[in-house]
Amino acid sequence: MTTTETVEKAPSERTRVRRGPLRAAYDRDTIHAIVDAAAMCHIGYTAEGAPHVIPTAHWRMGDRVYWHGSSASAMIRAAGGGIPVCFTASILDGVVVARSGFRSSFNYRSVVAFGTAETVTGDDAKLAALEAFMEKLIPGRWAELRRPSDQELKATTVLSMPLDEASAKVRGGGPNDLPEDLDTPLWAGWVPIRRELGAPIPLEDLPEGVTTPDYLRHIRIDTEG
Amino acid sequence: MTTTETVEKAPSERTRVRRGPLRAAYDRDTIHAIVDAAAMCHIGYTAEGAPHVIPTAHWRMGDRVYWHGSSASAMIRAAGGGIPVCFTASILDGVVVARSGFRSSFNYRSVVAFGTAETVTGDDAKLAALEAFMEKLIPGRWAELRRPSDQELKATTVLSMPLDEASAKVRGGGPNDLPEDLDTPLWAGWVPIRRELGAPIPLEDLPEGVTTPDYLRHIRIDTEG
Repeated sequence: MTTTETVEKAPSERTRVRRGPLRAAYDRDTIHAIVDAAAMCHIGYTAEGAPHVIPTAHWRMGDRVYWHGSSASAMIRAAGGGIPVCFTASILDGVVVARSGFRSSFNYRSVVAFGTAETVTGDDAKLAALEAFMEKLIPGRWAELRRPSDQELKATTVLSMPLDEASAKVRGGGPNDLPEDLDTPLWAGWVPIRRELGAPIPLEDLPEGVTTPDYLRHIRIDTEG
Repeated sequence: MTTTETVEKAPSERTRVRRGPLRAAYDRDTIHAIVDAAAMCHIGYTAEGAPHVIPTAHWRMGDRVYWHGSSASAMIRAAGGGIPVCFTASILDGVVVARSGFRSSFNYRSVVAFGTAETVTGDDAKLAALEAFMEKLIPGRWAELRRPSDQELKATTVLSMPLDEASAKVRGGGPNDLPEDLDTPLWAGWVPIRRELGAPIPLEDLPEGVTTPDYLRHIRIDTEG
């Protein structure tokens, strides 16, 4: 993974990445890839004068990002109310070990998007969105599950927002040490951080004959893109 | 890891966790453990009427959380300006595979804290904070590095905020399926997500004789607490 410079779309004033401009990207492919690779995002909104940042799972359909929650949750009610929201997805890829504290850093991929969330209405559209979520996470599971009940659908709110005011930041590789530090007799480079799935832990009371499905090995978690 | 119910301190109206109350905790030990285990946080602030959510690395000293950045960064300037901020740290621990989509979930640990950030002033206090950061991440590295220059210190702003208006949410274990789904002949349980360090990747131009230090094996990334 290397630093990305591709720019397809002009950034808005607030998505223009000011720090480390060589690490910024505004093209759709880079943004989509990071959004898809991240299992979790953070949704920001302002309520009663204070910023709120809530972690949740998300998925993408086309050029929109989706998340869901209880229809009664404070975040879902606030973010679904037509107020400005900020969607941020971040993946930590490694620790950059430089020959000075100042140039020590992290490798990461992140996307920040500004916009307004819309509520997905209609049972068919909601079901299609929830199916896309499950297919992103555990491909193959949805087809085996019963259809959500009307009560469950009602209790679930699905929100979405466009990714058209978005920017990505990508850092990869080793440190950019200062010239005067290059002769320091210290190790320098970077240490990758990877995510991996552990062995599935079944409930103890599964019906007899139930075996571990293959699709559990294909659960999608933050990947190296 | 099981659901935590300990409450030492009464939550404020905005930190009281409304969804899934059995998963909430307000005691200092639980909050500190999650903050310490997370390598990265998300800082929320409001600028020009819109919420902003910025990923960054953090560390803890006592009952305060710290983060740093370029003195010129928009986040550092905004968050350090005495406006309300939200600190959120989240660790994804696993995917909960239920016998319905509705009860499917994630295992996670998260902390949300509201407050106002203060700028750490004075070179000694800044150096002590930056040392604590490096010691959290790569224990042993700081002692080998040169002292930051005056220019580097000036270009770095360290912010901190108290963790006194904070709440934690912890979910662990398998799904809570509905009684009518228990006989469904489907696998149910959960799949752990773990973070691991890859092999260190050295720069190609390291001085001769430089070896890989042991402390790279002790880099602190999100752990299972």
